[in-house]
Amino acid sequence: MITLTTPHQIQSWRKRLPARGSIGFVPTMGALHDGHLSLIKRAKKENALTVVSLFVNPIQFGPKEDFARYPRPRRKDTALLKKTGVDVLFAPNTKAMYPNDVLTSVIVKDLTDTLCGAPSSRGPAHFSGVATVVAKLFNLVRPTQAYFGLKDYQQVRIIEQMNEDLNMGITIIRCPTVRDSDGLARSSRNTLLSPQERKVAPLLYAALQRGRKLLRSPRKMSLREFRHQIKSTLLTIPNVKIDYIELVDPKTLHKCESPRAPALLAAAIRLGTTRLIDNILVTR
Amino acid sequence: MITLTTPHQIQSWRKRLPARGSIGFVPTMGALHDGHLSLIKRAKKENALTVVSLFVNPIQFGPKEDFARYPRPRRKDTALLKKTGVDVLFAPNTKAMYPNDVLTSVIVKDLTDTLCGAPSSRGPAHFSGVATVVAKLFNLVRPTQAYFGLKDYQQVRIIEQMNEDLNMGITIIRCPTVRDSDGLARSSRNTLLSPQERKVAPLLYAALQRGRKLLRSPRKMSLREFRHQIKSTLLTIPNVKIDYIELVDPKTLHKCESPRAPALLAAAIRLGTTRLIDNILVTR
Repeated sequence: MITLTTPHQIQSWRKRLPARGSIGFVPTMGALHDGHLSLIKRAKKENALTVVSLFVNPIQFGPKEDFARYPRPRRKDTALLKKTGVDVLFAPNTKAMYPNDVLTSVIVKDLTDTLCGAPSSRGPAHFSGVATVVAKLFNLVRPTQAYFGLKDYQQVRIIEQMNEDLNMGITIIRCPTVRDSDGLARSSRNTLLSPQERKVAPLLYAALQRGRKLLRSPRKMSLREFRHQIKSTLLTIPNVKIDYIELVDPKTLHKCESPRAPALLAAAIRLGTTRLIDNILVTR
Repeated sequence: MITLTTPHQIQSWRKRLPARGSIGFVPTMGALHDGHLSLIKRAKKENALTVVSLFVNPIQFGPKEDFARYPRPRRKDTALLKKTGVDVLFAPNTKAMYPNDVLTSVIVKDLTDTLCGAPSSRGPAHFSGVATVVAKLFNLVRPTQAYFGLKDYQQVRIIEQMNEDLNMGITIIRCPTVRDSDGLARSSRNTLLSPQERKVAPLLYAALQRGRKLLRSPRKMSLREFRHQIKSTLLTIPNVKIDYIELVDPKTLHKCESPRAPALLAAAIRLGTTRLIDNILVTR
């Protein structure tokens, strides 16, 4: 595995490659878990070369968010990537990615100001930070295919839209959410949970599963009643704070007017100081 | 000369090229004049292949601006490009470039909301429209070098900044403004001037030249007096409307606090319904 740490290094590496031949790319913030590994293994299987980036992107964190606290087990991550057979690890530091004031940003209208981007949640600056860093990484790596996990469904939609609107010409591959045996979606933030919090965290997924059942049942109900049902399941979690529960159109992320499939059911909660998100795509 | 009209066509063409070998790119809105030709000739000289795009970009025009009226002498342009020995002409229509609602835009903070981007001028949406379409074209063509004329100095700075911030890895080449023998900067909009307007239009450049002389003279003056001097030259033009006269830092485009070189002296005026811009980079 080659490790590169500056934009200049990866650009030089990229220029030396022949024009043909597929490059799979998995951008990550590190603290790798089975979710990441499933993306990386798939990228390896489908491409001649696999590039993984490891960068905790400051511009996608709000001033009150957990940038400093975000887990950074760099040695463990590097060993894992080497063992998995990744060809190139791109691990820049903040100064390498943002040498000066960042004047340029990529904005994806509509998709960024709902769910996790709502003013009452992380706010729209979060996803412009995500879109901007992914645009930078795409330009540096110039992959043929890039792999993203559906746990961050909204992020996937934003990147798909950016890729299409800006004619980036990359194939964006959606990969299923990987879960622990009790249903909790794998997330780097799970390591921040206390043992008690970890124990009740799967109720987030249980609430979404209940939502799926309701959406598929023949019984008609109002959106209000539907949300109330999900909410009451989530409220059985001790000390939970609900960030949002939303039922949205899977493409536009516009809020559904009634509980009907196909739809994306997404929720975010806080357990203590840790924020967890999950979603279920409910087909008809 | 190959003519391509869809993103898909140019992406396929680009993919077939070998990884090495330079590609020069000149994005234009057509209505080609000697200014464009100077860029194209330089691109030809410096690159193995030269691509010119021809696209009147609707999203950089305000609702009250001259999108409909913008000159589109397509046949003449095509003949000229063929004669100049361009390798590829990319001439998409609006539907090809914007098949759906445009949700994604590229914003370049600070540089876009001054001069032509000031709310009292064309407004900041103009340059986000420029940055967005240039990002799209860069992604489609993936040139090694791209050529821009300094008549649109602010545009050049915005594209340089975007290229750097988003790690696009393209060399942006600044090319000098080409002028008629009477000093008027070549512009596609010059054809919209009446004979009387055309006759007095060179006074815009004359006013900027006067500004350069003042900046280089040992006599101290206030910014207010300096602007007044330029303004009085411009006001000798019959029926002129002054959009702005600004002295700014050539890199940040922040307004200078006193009349001192190095600085960019830029002005925009309206003659009848036609808007003209020009600038002089004054070195020490």
